[in-house]
Formats: sequence, C-alpha cells, structure tokens
Amino acid sequence: MKEISENLKLATIKSQLTKTRIQVGEITIGQDLVVMAGPCAVESEEQLMQTAAAVKAAGANILRGGAFKPRTSPYDFHGLGLQALKLLEKARTAYGLPIITEVLDSRDVTWIGEYVDILQIGARNMQNFALLKEVGKSRKPVLLKRGMHSTLKEWLNCAEYILSEGNPQVILCERGIRTFETYTRNTLDLSIVPAVHELTHLPIIVDPSHATGRVSLIKSMALAAVTAGADGLLIEVHYRPETALSDRDQQLNLPQFADLMQAVLRLKNFMPTLESLADHAKNN
Amino acid sequence: MKEISENLKLATIKSQLTKTRIQVGEITIGQDLVVMAGPCAVESEEQLMQTAAAVKAAGANILRGGAFKPRTSPYDFHGLGLQALKLLEKARTAYGLPIITEVLDSRDVTWIGEYVDILQIGARNMQNFALLKEVGKSRKPVLLKRGMHSTLKEWLNCAEYILSEGNPQVILCERGIRTFETYTRNTLDLSIVPAVHELTHLPIIVDPSHATGRVSLIKSMALAAVTAGADGLLIEVHYRPETALSDRDQQLNLPQFADLMQAVLRLKNFMPTLESLADHAKNN
Amino acid sequence: MKEISENLKLATIKSQLTKTRIQVGEITIGQDLVVMAGPCAVESEEQLMQTAAAVKAAGANILRGGAFKPRTSPYDFHGLGLQALKLLEKARTAYGLPIITEVLDSRDVTWIGEYVDILQIGARNMQNFALLKEVGKSRKPVLLKRGMHSTLKEWLNCAEYILSEGNPQVILCERGIRTFETYTRNTLDLSIVPAVHELTHLPIIVDPSHATGRVSLIKSMALAAVTAGADGLLIEVHYRPETALSDRDQQLNLPQFADLMQAVLRLKNFMPTLESLADHAKNN
Amino acid sequence: MKEISENLKLATIKSQLTKTRIQVGEITIGQDLVVMAGPCAVESEEQLMQTAAAVKAAGANILRGGAFKPRTSPYDFHGLGLQALKLLEKARTAYGLPIITEVLDSRDVTWIGEYVDILQIGARNMQNFALLKEVGKSRKPVLLKRGMHSTLKEWLNCAEYILSEGNPQVILCERGIRTFETYTRNTLDLSIVPAVHELTHLPIIVDPSHATGRVSLIKSMALAAVTAGADGLLIEVHYRPETALSDRDQQLNLPQFADLMQAVLRLKNFMPTLESLADHAKNN
Repeated sequence: MKEISENLKLATIKSQLTKTRIQVGEITIGQDLVVMAGPCAVESEEQLMQTAAAVKAAGANILRGGAFKPRTSPYDFHGLGLQALKLLEKARTAYGLPIITEVLDSRDVTWIGEYVDILQIGARNMQNFALLKEVGKSRKPVLLKRGMHSTLKEWLNCAEYILSEGNPQVILCERGIRTFETYTRNTLDLSIVPAVHELTHLPIIVDPSHATGRVSLIKSMALAAVTAGADGLLIEVHYRPETALSDRDQQLNLPQFADLMQAVLRLKNFMPTLESLADHAKNN
Repeated sequence: MKEISENLKLATIKSQLTKTRIQVGEITIGQDLVVMAGPCAVESEEQLMQTAAAVKAAGANILRGGAFKPRTSPYDFHGLGLQALKLLEKARTAYGLPIITEVLDSRDVTWIGEYVDILQIGARNMQNFALLKEVGKSRKPVLLKRGMHSTLKEWLNCAEYILSEGNPQVILCERGIRTFETYTRNTLDLSIVPAVHELTHLPIIVDPSHATGRVSLIKSMALAAVTAGADGLLIEVHYRPETALSDRDQQLNLPQFADLMQAVLRLKNFMPTLESLADHAKNN
Repeated sequence: MKEISENLKLATIKSQLTKTRIQVGEITIGQDLVVMAGPCAVESEEQLMQTAAAVKAAGANILRGGAFKPRTSPYDFHGLGLQALKLLEKARTAYGLPIITEVLDSRDVTWIGEYVDILQIGARNMQNFALLKEVGKSRKPVLLKRGMHSTLKEWLNCAEYILSEGNPQVILCERGIRTFETYTRNTLDLSIVPAVHELTHLPIIVDPSHATGRVSLIKSMALAAVTAGADGLLIEVHYRPETALSDRDQQLNLPQFADLMQAVLRLKNFMPTLESLADHAKNN
Repeated sequence: MKEISENLKLATIKSQLTKTRIQVGEITIGQDLVVMAGPCAVESEEQLMQTAAAVKAAGANILRGGAFKPRTSPYDFHGLGLQALKLLEKARTAYGLPIITEVLDSRDVTWIGEYVDILQIGARNMQNFALLKEVGKSRKPVLLKRGMHSTLKEWLNCAEYILSEGNPQVILCERGIRTFETYTRNTLDLSIVPAVHELTHLPIIVDPSHATGRVSLIKSMALAAVTAGADGLLIEVHYRPETALSDRDQQLNLPQFADLMQAVLRLKNFMPTLESLADHAKNN
C-alpha cells in the first residue's frame, strides 16, 4: 500500500479526503450509481436510436457507442468515425442522454471532445502516455479503463498522468484482466473495487460485458459489482446482438438489459442494509 | 463450452439435470447457503475452542481448521497433525459443528477420514491425481479447491477424477487465481461461479480469505460471492489474528466475522427478489 | 536475491561452494553435458527397444520413458505401469543406458526406485510436499521439474524439501512455464539457467520438448539451452511419433534426434571459446 | 498456425518467400547480424559520446538512445526530448553509426523521423494503432517491440498495421514478456525467434537487457538468442551504469559490452556448422 501510494500525489486518498464527484448531465458520478449502456460500436442510425430509446427507458444514465474501434487486425471493422459522432449527438438530443465514446489518438482529443460528454481511454491505450496527457489537458471527464494486464499501481499512475495535467475528472473502469482462464474472455477482478476505494478518492465503475464476453454471465457480475461497491456499470446493449459487427457474444438484447436494470435498481436500494455500524461511521 | 464438456462424463450438467446436494450434519450443501469458518491452522485448544464457539454463535455451519499445512518452505510451521485432528473432534462434540480439514498425502486419506466430515484438497494438490483417486474411493464429501493457475476445464477434469472413482460428493471451491496484481494475494474469479452453474451440477463455494489476503476486502468479496450465486463461503477466522502462526493478514477476528455473517444472512434472504421471471422458470 | 535465499539452507550457493555432481552410470551430471532421451510414454517393447537403440547410437546418456502418466482427464491413457518399468529395465540391460521415469504417488517411491536410476517429479507435482519428502528419503537422484507457474523461489524451496530430508542428489529441470502465448505449448524460460547457477550449486537441465510442444522448434531451443549454460537436455524421442499415444506433436523422430545430437555435441565443444577471462576465473 | 496467418496478408511467409532485408547505413538487417547498442536514455553529451565511441569500437552497428521515455509515473525522468535528438545526430556524425530512438506520439513521427534512421515502437505502444498507422506512412524502418503480454498473433497483426500502410521495413524485437517469475524483470521468450521465422519473412532481433533486467544474465541470453537464430541484438550500454537515470540494473558497462561483442562475433561465425543438411537446403 505504501509502495503504491508513493508516486501518487493527486490520486491518493491522502491528498483528498472527500470522494471525487463528477457531474455529467443530471447524474453525479461518485455519488449516484451510474449506468452507461449502448452498443459496442455505432453501426447505423436505426441501431443507435432504437438502442438509445430502450436503454433510456430501462433507466440507463449515459449512452455509450464506439465511433473509433481499436481492433487486433487492420482489416477488421474500425467504426464509422465522424458519422458515428453525429449519430451519438442526435441520440443525445432525442433522449437526453449524455454520451461517452473512446478516443484513440492524441490528435483527436480536442475535436472529439466537442461532440461527447465523457472521453474514454481503452484498455490497450492505458499506458499511451501521450494520449493520457492530452485528455489531461481537456475539460471533459475521462473514463480510464484498466489495461488487460495492468496492476493497480500501474493503473493509478495512469490516472495520475491525467490528474497532473490539471483534469480532476477521472473515472476508473475495471473491465477484466487477462488470465489463463479461457471460458470467459477476461477475468473480472471485483476485489479491485474496494481496493480502489481504500487507496483513492476516484470513482470506479465496472464493465462486465468485456470482462466476461458471455451474455449468460453479465447479469450476475453486474449485481456482484454493485454489491462490491462499484460506483456504476458499463454495459454493452444492442437492439439486435446477433447482427452486431463486433462483440456479438457479449451484447445484451433490449429485454435482457431491462431485466438487469430492474435487479440493479432493487439491489442498489437494498445495499445500505448490509453496512455495519463501522461502515456507517466511515462513510459519514 | 463443448470442448470443456467433452471429457466430462459425470460432472457435466448433461449427465445429471438436478443439482448435487450433499448432506453434512444438519446442512444440505447445494441447497442451503453454507458457511465454513475457522482458523487457518489449529494452533492450540484455547484458540480452536474459542474460535469455534464464536463462529457457531455467529451462524457458521461447519468448522474449518488446518491440521497438515502445505507450506512453500520446509522450515515453516506445518500444523499440529494428529493433535489438531483430536482438537477438531473435541470442538465438534462441544459445539455440534461438522469439521473440514485438508489432506495432503494419498496415504492419509483413510485415517484422516475417520476424524473429519469433509476432506479438503488444497489448490497446490488440485492435480495430484493419486490423491484425487484416493479421496474418490472415500465415502466422505470432498472440497476441491481450484488450483492457483487452473482453468475451469482443468478443474472440472479433477472433479471428474473423484467422481469417476465412485464418490459423487464433490464441492468446488474458488479461492482466487494468480495474476499480475500484487495488491491482493490472488485474484478472486467470481465469474467462475455462474460458469460452474451453467456447466455442472456440482455446488461451488467461495473462499475470499485466500483470494484477497486482506482483511479489509473480505466482507465485500463474501457478499459479492453470494450475489454471484455461490452455494457458500469458506472464511478464515481466528480469535486473535495478530498472533496467528500463518495467514495473519487474512484471518477475521470474531467481531468482524459476526458482522460479516449478519450481512450475509440478510443478503441471502434478499437474493430471490433479484431473479427475473426467466430465472424462476429455470430454477423450478 | 536475498529474499530468495533466506529460507534456503542447503540449496543455496552460500552453503556449498562447489557445484553438485551426481554420478549416474558412466556420466557425471553437473560436470558432463547429459542428454536424457526417449519416448513420452513406454507403449510397447518394440517402441521402447528401437527408440532406445537409436538414442544410444546418437549419443544420449540416459533413457527416459513414462510408466505412470499424469493426464488432465481420468479417461486418457495413463501409461503401462509395472509393465513399462520391466521394459525399461530390459532396455537398460540391452543398451547400457541408465533410466529415468516419473513417480506420482508417495506410496510408489520405494518400489519404483528399485527399477530406475533417477526418479522424476513432474511439473504438476512440484509442490506435492508429501511426494517431495518421500523422494528426499530415497537414495536415488531426483529430477525436479519446475511447475508450470512456479517462480524460481518456489522451485528452489521444493528442492530444499528434498535436500532437507537427506538426499543431496537433486537435478533441476526447466520445462517451460505457462504464459499467454499459445503458439508454443509453454514458454521456455532460458534465463532461469544462469539464474539457477548464480543462486545454487544444483545442476539444471532443460526440456525443450514440453516447453515448445512443436517439433520444428526443439533443435533451436536445445542449442540455445546449451549456450545458456544448461547442464543437459531432456528430449522426447519416438521411433514413430505419428503413432504416439501422447505428446504426438513434440516427439522427435530418430533422424531428427540424431541431427540434434550432432549439433549439440559440436556446440558443447565450441562453448569454452565464448567464455571471457572473468568467466574462466570464476569457474576455476 | 492457420489461425495466426488468416488475417496476415503481408507479414506472412506465404505472401513473400524471400526474407525481408532492410538496409540501414552499411548494414543489411535480415542478412547480417545487427547489434544496436547504447544507453537507455540520452542523459548528456559526455555520456552519449563516450558510450557511442565505445560501442562502435566494440563492433556495434547502430546506436540506440532514448529521447522520449515512457515511464510508469508522470513524475519520473522522461528524457531530454529534442536536445537528445540533437546529441544523437552529433554522435552519428562523429562515429558513423545510424541511430534508433523511440517515438511515443502519432504527432511526433514525422519530425522525429527527420533525425533518426530507425523509429522504435515500444512495448507499451505495441497496440497503439494510431501510432502504428503513422509510422506505416513513414519511409523509415520501424522496430516494433513485442508487448509485455502480447501473443505472437497480436504482435504480427501490429506489424501488419504498419505493412498495410505501405511501409515494408518492419523489424520485430522480442524484449521479454511478463510472467510470475520475479527474479528477472521479464521472461525472455526465445522460442518466438524460430516461430517468427517459420511464419513470417520479417527480421527479428532480441533485447536481453529489458528481458532480464540483470547485468549478470545478459551475456548468456544474448548468446542464446544468436543460437536461436535471432537477426540481431539490442543491448543497453552506459559508460557509467551506476549513475544512470533509468534502468540502472540492466545497462552493461563498456568492458562488459566489449566482452559480450567478442563472444557474439565468435558465435556468429560458428553458427553455420550447427545447421543440418535439411537446414542448408531450406536456407538456400
């Protein structure tokens, strides 16, 4: 713990006793439970608008959608780019949902920031220091995904890169780490949630979609994440997952997402009854 | 999924549609939520009896305690052996708690089985096939811990070794896998819980003590495990953790365990309200 | 380095300045370069005798052959057992090759030791402490394979288990560790060879067959191992690999092994010319 | 193998039967054995010039030196930037050594390319696709380091990103992958060298400095790399390692590098005698 904190001047709980709260539209991340939902990639107006309408109706707070997709092969589908950003803007206007999208290149931070409410740094770019510095100069909230193989120490140092450039609005996102298990796409590390809370003042949300890679496991892991103290969830939802151009096996369909939201909201309300007197004292 | 099941004749859900239920004393593992608790190692009569009394009072169902400890170095404390078994027997009589202890050597299965209610195979011995066959010939329930680096496929094949010798009473136990994260001792893989349920009929319990190696994370992970659908928990508890001869950083003290149990029991009662109509149909 | 050595009373170079030398038949392991070769498993008299004749002719020093095979599934081929030991004995008599085979169960150490010249502890049993203690009580040399996920520290502590029971004849064997790379079966860690030499007095040999799992890579890795300072090699050879009952993709055929041996012997003779004056001083 | 090649249109050996040869100054990478040497980071004129003079005298072909250093913490030393590039240029003029340096940001590719002979993509940026595309548009040779956790498949797809933008001059560099072993900084995967040769036409060099992180292991691993068929080496050398601002434990001093070079050159000349008749046929 000492070793982790020694290079952290800004991210550590010692530097700031109160939890970071980030206002995005009507929701206060770090205080309210936030649910970001939407398709892996923006594929068409119909796909985005129908999915956005449904996630809004189910209770999601923020709309996600990839415009620029980092893919293993140069020959895979890489997103619709600017066209996707314009569709996201349209969905925001139509449904009143703030939007989040991933940025891949330091040159794109400024102009993509004009379109979206939250900038996402993907797992593969967690240690792309040029990109971290650039989003650190932005005034937009940044969602920083944990690298596939990253330790907590490395991850928090990446948050520190953003904070040290003057941007205090950092949201951490656990999305699974690579292990030898192959049944799941990655291994969701839920113990990182209370660990982040005991070391930093930053909010942390959980992405069970990328972590598991299997529709059948997402609801259980979303609920377990809330129980573990996550400040929110990032869930891939597609109006017709079987036709998706990427991540087909891990996007919930609309009824599955509605069912998940219902359970999440019930669990959120139940959670305070699990706290001990000691927890109460700590939180107040 | 197909590849995992192909060598599994007995463990797979295809071979047995109803979930395995294992009766140990008054509890039915696989049906009721079971909590096994007690010290890492049996160290003295006072330590065991006081800890046993407290875990019983808090609501634990089974008493754990190591008699033979596998340790990295030959010069570490290796447990009290037979003396520990006699103390466990005494605690069982005094508090009416069935007992579980680890067995390390194929030669010890028969006689240790005379003392205890459940035989535990530790993570390091998950692929000790001689030992698996021997407990497979026993009539005692077997708790099979997942190896530190094991895949689900390898683990289920080890369960199959036991089942194929004629012992159907196998309980799986997730206790964390080794990853590059060093903040926690291991990484608790909770997604394995619903994965085990979709592939097999065997009960699975979760050990957050070894998984996290940190007292401060155990309650969160125990609750998350219950939310993920675990059939029970294995928790290290010591009446004076600061004096423990092993695993000092991960044994709860008695008030911490009582607080955890209270929350676990509340959560257990709440869980059914999180199920969707689809889940209800599946479970009945 | 300090941390690694602290629990090592006997394995560390500080406890014994001269390198351990182990006499097996005519070869002195730890002094001469030793080549152990033979089939993964003993399958038939014809298979074993023809392979043994060929490896002897090519220059191998010791015949390997599995009698008891640890396999992931209980339904796989597990070796011919006692029949295999008798065939190994016959091959030893016929070709004057000492023999090595794996032992899986603490109950089998004594009687298998009557048949063979070296007892092998496989990677899955590296931390089977009951088995380590039992071979520690034997008077036979022990080849201790590194566990698939083992650190150097854990491995040397396992050697210490054997040494501390009174058996000084321990040979270490690097056989690859599990990584995320899937092109090779495991990842051969050759840097462990000079690391073992700087920390301990024990000989270390290298098994490129299990490490790579691909015939096409074995020769390169065998030569690289010799260059890295290995005290020997363990190579799987089969007179007809395409018919083998296990490890089909990694057993060399007879001409491939003869070609490898020729190159190994040439390289062995060349090696002294690569030493610097500093190395010479250290070695003498 | 089939799966690895399926997305590789340009990197695969099927698309180009002859090995890629890249001319840099007087050396032909992919044909001659190339040695790139120099300090981790350019720290001062004295440091760079003295180190450059010595590595040239010892036989190195290319001078390395970091101008922009990716570091875990934002508060670590990040290199001298432009000043370092000017010093590298000066050293090139003085000693006739082509130079290589790492580029971190897609915005810097063009102007840094004006200064150096080879652009290096570091391990953390292996999947920084924006950067890969940008160097793919450059006319400079690119050294692509393998990511710390990367599979061969992922790595070759990153090479494909560069190739598919029109730059055929890609040199692969193995620098160790992260494993659970802590004695070495990373684990050098030498089996990747013959694997790369059997799948692609691209040259591959080996960096034993980052792979081992220990001066005492570098010579052994450099020689083993040459034996395994590497097309060259990348070695960190510092005229006074004990004063280095980064990577202090893994930079050779000048006499150590001279000793290593002597052995490497002897081994290079010896290598052809290890080839079998089959290898000869394949290579000609």
